[in-house]
Amino acid sequence: MAAKSEAMDKLVNLAKRRGLVYPSSEIYGGLRASWDYGPLGVELKQNIKRQWWRSMVQERDDIVGLDSSVILAREVWEASGHVQAFVDPLTECQSCHKRFRADHLIEAYEDKHGREPENGLADIACPNCGAKSSFTEPKMFNGLLRTYLGPVQDETGLAFLRPETAQGIFINYLNVQQSARKKIPFGIGQIGKSFRNEITPGNFIFRTREFEQMEMEFFVKPGEDEDWHQYWIDQRMQWYLDLGVGKDNLRLYEHPQEKLSHYSKRTVDIEYRFGFQGGEWGELEGVANRTDYDLSTHSEKSGADLSFFDQESNERYVPYVIEPAAGVDRTMLMFMLDAYREDEAPNAKGKMEKRSVMALDPRLSPVKAAVLPLSRNSDLSPKARDLAARLRKRWNTEFDDAGAIGRRYRRQDEIGTPFCVTVDFDTLEDDAVTVRERDTMAQERVSLDRVETYLFERLPAGC
Amino acid sequence: MAAKSEAMDKLVNLAKRRGLVYPSSEIYGGLRASWDYGPLGVELKQNIKRQWWRSMVQERDDIVGLDSSVILAREVWEASGHVQAFVDPLTECQSCHKRFRADHLIEAYEDKHGREPENGLADIACPNCGAKSSFTEPKMFNGLLRTYLGPVQDETGLAFLRPETAQGIFINYLNVQQSARKKIPFGIGQIGKSFRNEITPGNFIFRTREFEQMEMEFFVKPGEDEDWHQYWIDQRMQWYLDLGVGKDNLRLYEHPQEKLSHYSKRTVDIEYRFGFQGGEWGELEGVANRTDYDLSTHSEKSGADLSFFDQESNERYVPYVIEPAAGVDRTMLMFMLDAYREDEAPNAKGKMEKRSVMALDPRLSPVKAAVLPLSRNSDLSPKARDLAARLRKRWNTEFDDAGAIGRRYRRQDEIGTPFCVTVDFDTLEDDAVTVRERDTMAQERVSLDRVETYLFERLPAGC
Repeated sequence: MAAKSEAMDKLVNLAKRRGLVYPSSEIYGGLRASWDYGPLGVELKQNIKRQWWRSMVQERDDIVGLDSSVILAREVWEASGHVQAFVDPLTECQSCHKRFRADHLIEAYEDKHGREPENGLADIACPNCGAKSSFTEPKMFNGLLRTYLGPVQDETGLAFLRPETAQGIFINYLNVQQSARKKIPFGIGQIGKSFRNEITPGNFIFRTREFEQMEMEFFVKPGEDEDWHQYWIDQRMQWYLDLGVGKDNLRLYEHPQEKLSHYSKRTVDIEYRFGFQGGEWGELEGVANRTDYDLSTHSEKSGADLSFFDQESNERYVPYVIEPAAGVDRTMLMFMLDAYREDEAPNAKGKMEKRSVMALDPRLSPVKAAVLPLSRNSDLSPKARDLAARLRKRWNTEFDDAGAIGRRYRRQDEIGTPFCVTVDFDTLEDDAVTVRERDTMAQERVSLDRVETYLFERLPAGC
Repeated sequence: MAAKSEAMDKLVNLAKRRGLVYPSSEIYGGLRASWDYGPLGVELKQNIKRQWWRSMVQERDDIVGLDSSVILAREVWEASGHVQAFVDPLTECQSCHKRFRADHLIEAYEDKHGREPENGLADIACPNCGAKSSFTEPKMFNGLLRTYLGPVQDETGLAFLRPETAQGIFINYLNVQQSARKKIPFGIGQIGKSFRNEITPGNFIFRTREFEQMEMEFFVKPGEDEDWHQYWIDQRMQWYLDLGVGKDNLRLYEHPQEKLSHYSKRTVDIEYRFGFQGGEWGELEGVANRTDYDLSTHSEKSGADLSFFDQESNERYVPYVIEPAAGVDRTMLMFMLDAYREDEAPNAKGKMEKRSVMALDPRLSPVKAAVLPLSRNSDLSPKARDLAARLRKRWNTEFDDAGAIGRRYRRQDEIGTPFCVTVDFDTLEDDAVTVRERDTMAQERVSLDRVETYLFERLPAGC
């Protein structure tokens, strides 16, 4: 865990320095636990979303996409139970006046001591100031962010920012099913921002008030729900493995029956070994069997008939729902953390020196290729610029002519660029360039007019 | 205008029926002027954003991307002038109590009569109930949507949902410039949601409270700003033309000097002939010369030095900013409207019948190919399903085996699918399929193993 924690510190630093993630509103002193994504971060995030969409929507015949509004009718959140039940227990340290989620404090205690605290919060010292027996009785606190539509700021215009994209799917279920002419089983996938009034956001981009979700609701026949649930747990775990995440850093966590959300029959989380202080494992994604809770409730409250007539079995039923719901931001943090390593590379004099590499799957790498003219302000520059412009038509490509070539390789290594293409003085003679692969550092001479083909053959599909 | 208005009605109907755009929260009676994007709509919107990003960020060496938060520090909106100046004049009809923007009422009057109303609002009849001299004195109304962060809903936690993505770019200017090592001139592009408490949203997805923007801030040396401004006006107009929009339906609108926003030296809108009631032309995109207003103001209020030292001219200056800012939703409406046409196609008996076509540029088409087995539940089905699965690896592909083949062509035509691939009984003999092109309806026999190559060669780059 010490090593992991150190890796996290390095990553936060790297992320800011290289334009992956900046503290938001930094020139104004920052907004707590709020982050903006820089030029490389926006590409990495986009690539994660693209891979999810490809595997969950585009490549499947039985899932379609949706993009519903952040602000939905208030009735939606009343029906879904969020207005009443989307609450967390909030406690305050009477010594330092910092606020905490009581359930998080207790979980951290359990993680550390392997058992529940005997006297609840009274046994727990404040993580901020160390005071003992200082916590107030927890109060329930609603996590919905409010806003007001229309000219007057009162109850008539009260609306909520969505805390999950899922409800936007449920209320559009009928429109989608009919216009896309889908039969059970089928799914609806959606990627978009959600907002939660988190009391204790933190751990970099792991928990923030504003975050992106990748959610898919899969509608099945009651009775077939348990098999489908297992199917989606397996599928989703495989998605992370296929994108190169270390198997030992992933695990499944079965929610205990007594702690399930109000809508859930069974929920299994996919967790990653983040190595946070106060909790080594963190949730990447929850895969829940939401039963017919959501469609039944919306059906009842709205009056719309959300049942499905199954022509094969000649039955009418309200579909059960299996939901794999992942967070984009924390998934991005995980991919960076898992890919970050330090090894050695030869410097200009052939001596081995430390290098940092982000060994991302090339489908995720923010930059696919970097074009590096060996010398600046020479005849190499126009050739290198032309090549970079050509590659940019297909992939995100950097051009870098500043500093020693070894240093420029290091710059690309630490952001995970799979291929560096060096234009050198031989290029003027043989119209060829040197392509260097990130992980093996192997170099190969490639004819200038074949660079696209060379990269195309080596980059996985979906880049 | 009558024809356009009719086209709009057909489009709203088509959009719901085919899963492009649904009224949001419809099962709860809807949320006024709020829309959700269905399976085809999410693809079309995504394609528009992808084309913008390709041309504005990926293919250019001088522009990088960003993804900043919706909720920024409150100081940002105080510095930008939005808390004070982001206001519209609101008036109410005392007869029917409907609210309007006074400036919109006056603009509509001017459009119709070719002159200003002599006595202001008093000359204008209520568009809702027809009452005369019924409007109240306009009151200024702020368009920022508010929310409250933290456990207590008071001024300490007051925050705003961003009404434009631009400010997120300005406050990150220094971080981006340094981490991406950019020199003036360079730009930062961003796509994301913005929120405005619109008093009079309407015209389908043209004006909504929640909408997506594609904004790019281009930082230039003062004195070079006017040339760069013209450059970006030309570039952006060309983008629409390159994506097939009719030249006669586009125009530039120069904002009169006295009506410029508080930050602008010159603003030129790119407008499209939407043919709305009460205003034929509507803004797609504004291209503004924002001068050094934003960077100077943020510099002053935050204390951060946002000036740039220009090594070439040995000068230090605060960059000027040229901003092309487009709306994704209204651009989508425009592309659909511009591409919608009716012509004739032969039916099964060879008789000509009316067909509706959405002649979208294939880069924008939500579905690139449809695989249609001539007969259902036959030996054709497995071959057709295999082909669809293969094509899905590369492009969004539909499989449709329901109904007469002519009807299935019509279904693809009206959503703009460029190619239909028919698997017929000859396929079982010759291992070939018939590919039909949307606009010409020309058909060609293509070997089954060459379908990807055939489509790849005919679809433009960037599909």
